[in-house]
Amino acid sequence: MRLALDAMGGDTGPAAVVAGALHFAAAHPDVSLVLVGDESQVRGALPARLPANVRLHHASQVVGMEEHALAAVRAKRDASVRVCFELVKRREADAAVTAGHSGAAMAAALAVLGRLPGVERPALAALFPALGASGRCLLLDVGANAECRPSHLAQFAVLGAAYVRACHAVASPRVAVLSNGEEESKGTPLTKGALALLKQSDLDFRGYAEGKDLFSGAFDVLVTDGFTGNAVLKASEGVAAGLTGLLQQAVHQAHLPSRLGGLLLRPTLAALGRLVDASEVGGVPLLGIAGVGVIAHGRSSPRAISSALRVARRTVEADLEGTLASAVAAARGWLATRAVKGAKGKTPEGF
Amino acid sequence: MRLALDAMGGDTGPAAVVAGALHFAAAHPDVSLVLVGDESQVRGALPARLPANVRLHHASQVVGMEEHALAAVRAKRDASVRVCFELVKRREADAAVTAGHSGAAMAAALAVLGRLPGVERPALAALFPALGASGRCLLLDVGANAECRPSHLAQFAVLGAAYVRACHAVASPRVAVLSNGEEESKGTPLTKGALALLKQSDLDFRGYAEGKDLFSGAFDVLVTDGFTGNAVLKASEGVAAGLTGLLQQAVHQAHLPSRLGGLLLRPTLAALGRLVDASEVGGVPLLGIAGVGVIAHGRSSPRAISSALRVARRTVEADLEGTLASAVAAARGWLATRAVKGAKGKTPEGF
Repeated sequence: MRLALDAMGGDTGPAAVVAGALHFAAAHPDVSLVLVGDESQVRGALPARLPANVRLHHASQVVGMEEHALAAVRAKRDASVRVCFELVKRREADAAVTAGHSGAAMAAALAVLGRLPGVERPALAALFPALGASGRCLLLDVGANAECRPSHLAQFAVLGAAYVRACHAVASPRVAVLSNGEEESKGTPLTKGALALLKQSDLDFRGYAEGKDLFSGAFDVLVTDGFTGNAVLKASEGVAAGLTGLLQQAVHQAHLPSRLGGLLLRPTLAALGRLVDASEVGGVPLLGIAGVGVIAHGRSSPRAISSALRVARRTVEADLEGTLASAVAAARGWLATRAVKGAKGKTPEGF
Repeated sequence: MRLALDAMGGDTGPAAVVAGALHFAAAHPDVSLVLVGDESQVRGALPARLPANVRLHHASQVVGMEEHALAAVRAKRDASVRVCFELVKRREADAAVTAGHSGAAMAAALAVLGRLPGVERPALAALFPALGASGRCLLLDVGANAECRPSHLAQFAVLGAAYVRACHAVASPRVAVLSNGEEESKGTPLTKGALALLKQSDLDFRGYAEGKDLFSGAFDVLVTDGFTGNAVLKASEGVAAGLTGLLQQAVHQAHLPSRLGGLLLRPTLAALGRLVDASEVGGVPLLGIAGVGVIAHGRSSPRAISSALRVARRTVEADLEGTLASAVAAARGWLATRAVKGAKGKTPEGF
């Protein structure tokens, strides 16, 4: 198996990415890694003698975190993230992995690989730890599609359910639409339209869920538009980051022996950590593209990069692309009944 | 001063509400409380002899937490929440306070009192503790208006800024629009339209903010549509509730002397508590109605009810209604330039 890794991506530059790549390469001699990026910069972070399963592929450009994704990907034909997907397209790699601008990754995947047949909008997903309960909850979209139609949300449900079934061993994922209340009288034309579509699906569809349900353990997949999903994801990270600081401060001020403090805080800090830097989870595939692309978190540590590479490996082994294609094809019957308009309908009161 | 309290509201029934009311009444002999609700039920939670500044006002109906707010308020003319606002309308009370269905409170306020002149959509607001930094952040709307136009968001900014200036002593509130990224290329037609309007305002307007900024301390007021606001609020509460459980479990398992555990955890649990049950904050006024109405949290404890009554008292003393009316009148000039459409425009890519 060959994985193409965007060596320029990530908030911290090539060093952390390369360190994670070397760690992964040492542990997985059966996987070949192609580090894609500016040769002189990446070389500087590498040892003089490369491991047998690591090689470098030069790409002269980079998409910065603050660039407009679509414009940058169109203008920079030799951007590292784009070249990763070109390697997948040319079958020189089985998957692309990047810790860079997630919007740029999606734009590059779409420009180079395109969508799976029948998929209107591929999605970015995030895995939330279900605090206080077992399991995890997948939220999508978290940023690729700021505005959506009901059929997009219904497709996110199909993609998300197929993904957690194939890669997280959830036999029958419980799926819901994120809304502003559990009652069917709540919601917007978008959520109401998605509700109507999903009731006809063969998914284990549970209706509406609320923001708190990302952590309640009651659902495996929640679907929403990318604007709301992004706000929810970042607010949750904000709470967790703030509380991590408060907690560490509290332990510090209590003058506890550090071993005791560590024992006490480890489980809580670990849960906070999963929320804050996603390094436990390590990466989530783009769902709905014609190929495999995995996004690592922008603040990725070497550990997170290594973890994202493992996710990519598992994703290729599970034939996620084929699994998703079958799921979308199977859903075509009920997805076709999209007379339901929504999103463009008249504004009802929110309560 | 006279305050009308919905004695039936709250997830836990009249007992907690009445306990909070009695606590407040004892501490504020200068304020008269009118407890509105089913006489037999409320009487059961009261002592045989009422304090001099507490009286009962019978209302035969209740709006349940799962009812459709607008329909319920229309159908139930004698619902406790509606009667509270009738008392305000008839000048028999200076403010209404409820811990019940917040949508029903807004619907009742609109039906009975109406809007302030020039306000298109009154809003529900929530105060977030800025973790790891000083201050707080007001988010609105968090549920009254699931769908909004740019001018609504601009008005929320005016109302929110005037509120934190008048009631939280923030001299020059820093205002931003909640979006899916800080760059102006992000957002939706709704946020772009609001951005264009607010750039012309005389507020200290800072552009776009992200979900994490609710806790960063970098902003005093964030505006968004009620659907997104609700999802963000409930997700944040969900994180905090889950982490509270984890933290208590960790302390329990560490077999610490309980005093030490308490010392250690107090600041963190207090911050979590502010997020989870809002009892520290205790209540936030409906912003934009022609009168004063304060919403206590649905899971309100007696302490939260007492706190919400204090908020109502402060709000009346600060003449919030007059302050907001002046602020909206002063903003009329730049708010009139709402050629910007948005929300109904064509869908751009989210990145």
